[in-house]
Amino acid sequence: MIRFCNHCGSSVSFYVPPGDSLPRHVCDACGHIHYENPRLVVGCVAEWEGRILLCRRAIEPRHGFWTLPAGFMENGESTAQGAGRETYEEAGAKVIIDAPFAMVSVPHINQVHLFYRGRLATPDYSAGEESLEVDLFAPEAIPWPELAFRTVELCLRRYLADRQRERFGFHESELPPL
Amino acid sequence: MIRFCNHCGSSVSFYVPPGDSLPRHVCDACGHIHYENPRLVVGCVAEWEGRILLCRRAIEPRHGFWTLPAGFMENGESTAQGAGRETYEEAGAKVIIDAPFAMVSVPHINQVHLFYRGRLATPDYSAGEESLEVDLFAPEAIPWPELAFRTVELCLRRYLADRQRERFGFHESELPPL
Repeated sequence: MIRFCNHCGSSVSFYVPPGDSLPRHVCDACGHIHYENPRLVVGCVAEWEGRILLCRRAIEPRHGFWTLPAGFMENGESTAQGAGRETYEEAGAKVIIDAPFAMVSVPHINQVHLFYRGRLATPDYSAGEESLEVDLFAPEAIPWPELAFRTVELCLRRYLADRQRERFGFHESELPPL
Repeated sequence: MIRFCNHCGSSVSFYVPPGDSLPRHVCDACGHIHYENPRLVVGCVAEWEGRILLCRRAIEPRHGFWTLPAGFMENGESTAQGAGRETYEEAGAKVIIDAPFAMVSVPHINQVHLFYRGRLATPDYSAGEESLEVDLFAPEAIPWPELAFRTVELCLRRYLADRQRERFGFHESELPPL
């Protein structure tokens, strides 16, 4: 929640600025407008010899549940770089990014989740600070009831379906609130 | 530039918080971490009877130059909804969104530009507040030297190439600084 201007420290008011169509937090003193926009979460479905890399989360939300390596895109990087970085940070794995695979808008939490598909460069991986453990899973071994997020499940199901028919697409969707 | 905490109004310091890997603006009083992340710009290549909808910008940057209808994605909407909203706001046109078409990371300005392809629902359009004029352009009439942004040119060139071969793909790329 924005209560103070991050430029001058004065209080802000919430209203539609002239020429705009949505209310924003506008500084009462210097007039600075604090825009808030959705964040991109970038991640990767990374394979090694037909198995898929998953991480068990060491942090909230969904501590202890399994996820694809993914996280908030940072300033100064591309979406693909972000996906590779997150895979390295969370799973200690170097991934060769092949192509964008799935993009899921999650409007009720102001996020867009973008998953690439790729391959591990080597079979090396290890749990990063945000992971309890990391492992490779054959399709039949994926712990579906223990997946952390609906976007991860959606991405994995589409991935396995595409893999079966030997043709990968790019899948776009929107996830409604539960 | 973040100088004050938007939660409590105190000063901030710039350092790597414990467990993080990048420096952030952290509040000296309440500890709130101010993350900054790339913004998504969503837009649309909208056709009517083979011609493409372009807007001439009434605002900076690139006042007077032509662009595809596009703008910052807002909280609470999907990427496709954002593309449709921007097309309506800037070009007064109702668009039927067909599919994601191009995604361009622009790391040096912390943006990701995402363009859909679509069709006008009716041949009605009019300049919104941010446009000087709006028009439909046949491929041979596109004002290439007067386009506002490199991502718009890149998207339009790929679009026309795909249209010629009668097969639309999804194109991902990264735009380096000039």
